[in-house]
Amino acid sequence: MQKILILGAGLSASSLIKYLLEHSEQYDWKIRIGDLSVETAERKIGGHANGEAFQFDVSNQEQCYAEVEKADIVVSMLPASMHFSVAEACVKYSKNMVTASYVSKEIQGLKDEAIEKDIIILNEIGVDPGIDHMSAMKVIDKIREEGSEVIEFYSSTGGLVAPKYDNNPWNYKFTWNPRNVVLAGQGSSMFIKRGRYKYIPYNKLFDRVLRTNVLDYGEFEIYPNRDSLKYRGIYGLDDIPTMYRGTMRRPGFSKAWNVFVQLGCTDDSYVIEDSANMTYREFTNSFLRFEPNIPVEKKLADYVGIAEDSEIMYKLRWLGIFKDEVIGLNAATPAQILQHILLQKWVLDEDDKDMIAMQHRFIAKKDGKEKEITSSMVIEGSDQVHTAMSKTVGYPVAIATKLILTGKITAKGVKIPIEKAIYEPVLEELEGMGIQFIEEERDL
Amino acid sequence: MQKILILGAGLSASSLIKYLLEHSEQYDWKIRIGDLSVETAERKIGGHANGEAFQFDVSNQEQCYAEVEKADIVVSMLPASMHFSVAEACVKYSKNMVTASYVSKEIQGLKDEAIEKDIIILNEIGVDPGIDHMSAMKVIDKIREEGSEVIEFYSSTGGLVAPKYDNNPWNYKFTWNPRNVVLAGQGSSMFIKRGRYKYIPYNKLFDRVLRTNVLDYGEFEIYPNRDSLKYRGIYGLDDIPTMYRGTMRRPGFSKAWNVFVQLGCTDDSYVIEDSANMTYREFTNSFLRFEPNIPVEKKLADYVGIAEDSEIMYKLRWLGIFKDEVIGLNAATPAQILQHILLQKWVLDEDDKDMIAMQHRFIAKKDGKEKEITSSMVIEGSDQVHTAMSKTVGYPVAIATKLILTGKITAKGVKIPIEKAIYEPVLEELEGMGIQFIEEERDL
Repeated sequence: MQKILILGAGLSASSLIKYLLEHSEQYDWKIRIGDLSVETAERKIGGHANGEAFQFDVSNQEQCYAEVEKADIVVSMLPASMHFSVAEACVKYSKNMVTASYVSKEIQGLKDEAIEKDIIILNEIGVDPGIDHMSAMKVIDKIREEGSEVIEFYSSTGGLVAPKYDNNPWNYKFTWNPRNVVLAGQGSSMFIKRGRYKYIPYNKLFDRVLRTNVLDYGEFEIYPNRDSLKYRGIYGLDDIPTMYRGTMRRPGFSKAWNVFVQLGCTDDSYVIEDSANMTYREFTNSFLRFEPNIPVEKKLADYVGIAEDSEIMYKLRWLGIFKDEVIGLNAATPAQILQHILLQKWVLDEDDKDMIAMQHRFIAKKDGKEKEITSSMVIEGSDQVHTAMSKTVGYPVAIATKLILTGKITAKGVKIPIEKAIYEPVLEELEGMGIQFIEEERDL
Repeated sequence: MQKILILGAGLSASSLIKYLLEHSEQYDWKIRIGDLSVETAERKIGGHANGEAFQFDVSNQEQCYAEVEKADIVVSMLPASMHFSVAEACVKYSKNMVTASYVSKEIQGLKDEAIEKDIIILNEIGVDPGIDHMSAMKVIDKIREEGSEVIEFYSSTGGLVAPKYDNNPWNYKFTWNPRNVVLAGQGSSMFIKRGRYKYIPYNKLFDRVLRTNVLDYGEFEIYPNRDSLKYRGIYGLDDIPTMYRGTMRRPGFSKAWNVFVQLGCTDDSYVIEDSANMTYREFTNSFLRFEPNIPVEKKLADYVGIAEDSEIMYKLRWLGIFKDEVIGLNAATPAQILQHILLQKWVLDEDDKDMIAMQHRFIAKKDGKEKEITSSMVIEGSDQVHTAMSKTVGYPVAIATKLILTGKITAKGVKIPIEKAIYEPVLEELEGMGIQFIEEERDL
């Protein structure tokens, strides 16, 4: 009997726990699930005989070490900042560890010790990061095996509402952390195109979108992610002339979102004075010129250079940002107030389902000839527990955990899933679960 | 004989040292001046019999304490972050202290100890902060003494080149820390106008300027400073409906500077790839779309929405940002590269003189009647050592030091010069030195 320790039983762990419990008979696993809320862990187990819930607090180091010592493998679904103390325990007791989060510098620093202790600390094996790495490396390795060179690589992912439930003017609902959506893109973004480095500040980011079609899901737009350049090193494409990563939205989203960026209402660095008594209309007006005789709507349209009867203004009106009604948030930043407004309108209805879309576009070159390879995946959620997000984060983590326990993944050290020996069996099993990339090729 | 200890002998200390040495015979002062570079300190003393230079390193706590113990008063012209360790020594040995910097939280925390030790730690007595506080409080106190209420207060200051030497298309040259000019305004700015709070993000800041005339110096434009709201509390105007502080430039500066903000080339948070080999033209192009068949000039004009033959484009061309010439800065941020470009063009020529302009505009109300009071000051530099900046920073510090030593300023504790007993004698003496505010009144 092997013992799996899962730490953290939040939304992103639902499909992971389901998968491991479903396979627990076959492989003779016992699964201990720790969460701050023991009820949450119990609900996810749903009375399954091989599951066991317990109250877990990562700040209790003694408990953490004791639990890790008893386990054969540790899956950490805790917030990213909490992985390191778990990883230290795993190194101490020579236990394998799996997470869906970015490798932190601290965890990277455990590389030599992990090899010495003959364990793997496998990170970035959720969806983004995770499925993006694996599906990209599959194509990159294939291109190289053909003796071709990758000269362009565009990659983008989006968490959206599934088409059937896509019924608001923004074609968007929150399917994941709303705060990350409100703050997305702050700072400068960078990528490289045909050998030219390109830098885009936040105030221009949502004005510089690309367009693409994904399978039969229609058109999407893409705005650039923060740092596309570092992925050259990660994928072994150090000299690639074009490397671009982005986030997908439905067409028209970014131009409307850009209004909030221009106004300054995504700022999270200061608190609005007297926010508790402010109306929606006053919030909007606080970013506009003092011109008391001009309606707020007209001031806003003029300020950001759009027509008062434009589609963008329709989207903004629909959100209620011109209402004479008190918002009622005390000591709130602009970003917090905006998030509060959006949460009332971009919420998933009870029966709504989410969707994850991912697309890689490569140009491969051999003997002067170029071809384009597109690899696309769309998956919809099953319900509001087993969302597309929960499945695409949880299944790769679960599959990798199984493959480590069954000796199919044998790599040691601090890893991300860019090696064929890791990504190939994981992608193969994901395909059977409907998380499948469709590749299309055409000569250029 | 009284002993004055001056710590820091940089540019901003020139006029301060000159004043104190010139008055040292009359008052029987001995002045010890410490700087990391003993040569700098010696040059400022110029062989004066009452001055003594020594090598000083603030990180050497033992030296700091020993020097403070020997002195009767300490003037710290060190960088702002270094004042606190000096202040601690002053508290320990019961020595008065004067600085031109903003009161830090740490120094504010010494309030009770300063009173207990019967000393004053007088801060913010340079130009901005300093002369702005004193000249504003003089008018505010007068308005109150008349039984009127201050209902609007606009205050702005600018460091510029004197009109006779103002001969470039930006009507601007660096007269102080260039880095602060390049980074000015990042984040969000806030003020209040007729009871409405107004927030302006960086990307709109230089597009929302005011205009004013200052004495016979012609027209200026004003862009808002970061936080005007906190000055309500400082000046005892907690309920004032309009409070605005800004920075003065010559008209047209801000619209052209806004191009750099829109492009993103004032960002100091990341390093440009391969910056060592980049040309001016490539630097500019790196913020623009990839459209290799369109000239960089046209791309830029379209991107920021200006005409290719506009005055703004003329200003930009004049700076050389389209040149095919290597810049030659290794591992530099956009802001560092921009500063490097500007330093070659916005430099003061050998005989150029600088200028400081300051203007307060109040509206006072009594019995339903309103009047406007404008208080304006312009001073030009004497040369490139005794600049307007050095005089307006150094003279108030020097005068306050004298007034403390001669027992004319008797306040104790951690102070800024907003009390009549402090600002009145300082302003009076500044007037005699040509730093004079002209007040104008008109009924509205």
